[in-house]
Amino acid sequence: MKQTKAHRCCGGTLGIWEHTSEALQCSMTFSVFLPPQADKGPVPFVTFLSGLTCTHENFTTKAGAYRAAAELGLAVVAPDTSPRGEDVPNDDAYDLGQGAGFYINATQEPWSKHFHMERYVMEELLPLVESSFPVQADQQGIFGHSMGGHGALTLFFKYPGKFKSVSAFAPIVAPTQVPWGHKAFAAYLGDDREAWKNHDACELVRRGGDASSNPMILVDQGTADGFLEEQLQPALFVDACGSVGQSLQLRMQEGYDHSYYFIQSFVADHLAHHKTYLGSVVG
Amino acid sequence: MKQTKAHRCCGGTLGIWEHTSEALQCSMTFSVFLPPQADKGPVPFVTFLSGLTCTHENFTTKAGAYRAAAELGLAVVAPDTSPRGEDVPNDDAYDLGQGAGFYINATQEPWSKHFHMERYVMEELLPLVESSFPVQADQQGIFGHSMGGHGALTLFFKYPGKFKSVSAFAPIVAPTQVPWGHKAFAAYLGDDREAWKNHDACELVRRGGDASSNPMILVDQGTADGFLEEQLQPALFVDACGSVGQSLQLRMQEGYDHSYYFIQSFVADHLAHHKTYLGSVVG
Repeated sequence: MKQTKAHRCCGGTLGIWEHTSEALQCSMTFSVFLPPQADKGPVPFVTFLSGLTCTHENFTTKAGAYRAAAELGLAVVAPDTSPRGEDVPNDDAYDLGQGAGFYINATQEPWSKHFHMERYVMEELLPLVESSFPVQADQQGIFGHSMGGHGALTLFFKYPGKFKSVSAFAPIVAPTQVPWGHKAFAAYLGDDREAWKNHDACELVRRGGDASSNPMILVDQGTADGFLEEQLQPALFVDACGSVGQSLQLRMQEGYDHSYYFIQSFVADHLAHHKTYLGSVVG
Repeated sequence: MKQTKAHRCCGGTLGIWEHTSEALQCSMTFSVFLPPQADKGPVPFVTFLSGLTCTHENFTTKAGAYRAAAELGLAVVAPDTSPRGEDVPNDDAYDLGQGAGFYINATQEPWSKHFHMERYVMEELLPLVESSFPVQADQQGIFGHSMGGHGALTLFFKYPGKFKSVSAFAPIVAPTQVPWGHKAFAAYLGDDREAWKNHDACELVRRGGDASSNPMILVDQGTADGFLEEQLQPALFVDACGSVGQSLQLRMQEGYDHSYYFIQSFVADHLAHHKTYLGSVVG
């Protein structure tokens, strides 16, 4: 792992890091913001999973998250959304291949050699972050946007206890029921639609049974989001959460779209939400 | 003038606008953020002038300014840094031609047909903004970064009374004394170095004489800025301001560089600085 850039930011430090991923068989880039409190000892942290077409850079440069993170004493990790490189398969469409890893492990050719974003995040990136930076491994949350909201919600349910807090901006909550998910899951996982359900937040929350002791999930969704009705359908998640007592705060944000202007408007709220579940700073 | 994009942002609205500029003989793009207070009546506003290589987009997407602007009730205008287009002369270097207009009016070929950024901002863009948006023309400030800091400071002194507040991030304060200025002014203005002095903030503040009734100027400068010693030299501005009683707060920010991470760290302070000089919201 090597640091390619470092910037002082909001009293903390923003670093851009490169490393070779075994899970993805390629070089990967991610950013880590350390708040000023990290100078004194390990701090809680949150990982932000980005949406279709994004790299680590979109959130890092456009979300305006670091001022609030510095005030709250939270580190923030932002990975890329897929394996990258000329040797990695791709597709002309924006919603398949590079930039569209969907935070799952592909089983189908030509994707199965590289496209293991779930394994990458859970078994490689997070352990690397936990061992290399002054962060508290047992005080971490996860959040994301759109495809990354799907990633955050599904990883939260797939790995109980790993994340003490979770939130999402305009998440794909039911990929087994919408075109983005149909396309990606068919390509990456094949035609067995039962297998798809292992990667669908609405399915996972129902399967978990009584969720009344889970942390509340915060979801923001813009009402002017062009993907709302066809791809996002937050009402499906409201139903699923309601059926098992999963506490959910869905905020329909009037007039907001799917862009980073939407994210920068509410990212401080999300960080504050995470902080309510994550431990105090040591030291 | 036509709006090409509109985003709800931080309770206000961020619009991207295109218009044909007579001063520049080309199509130009700028952004306008209107805070929620603008729904009730005209609000004070600030114009941000960007640095070398930037378009209107860098500040708009990366500065994270709109949350603070919404809280303060300030509109924020962000223009491009030069004329644009295939018909507009350019140079292979990043610090001349497109992306490097220096907020002056070129008199030399091949630049003199299009490169009139001072005239564009003062006689075209600001009047357009003042007449087209709910802003208070008599309650406006100006700020900028690097080349745009030079622009903000020089326009403040060239047009007394136009701007009630001014600030800058890592400004070029003495273009007649540093390589960036030598190169651009020689190309745009020719070899008469006396004429260059009309566009040098250090010269202009001295020429103005007693400046004790001027608003305070806020300048932030990172100590890890790679351009600090050769191109920026804020001490020259400290001396110039001191010689005429111009109140200046120069904050040397430890470890900060020249990037938008530096700007996003302190942009809220700058907006608050402007707000102290700009009128209250009407309505």
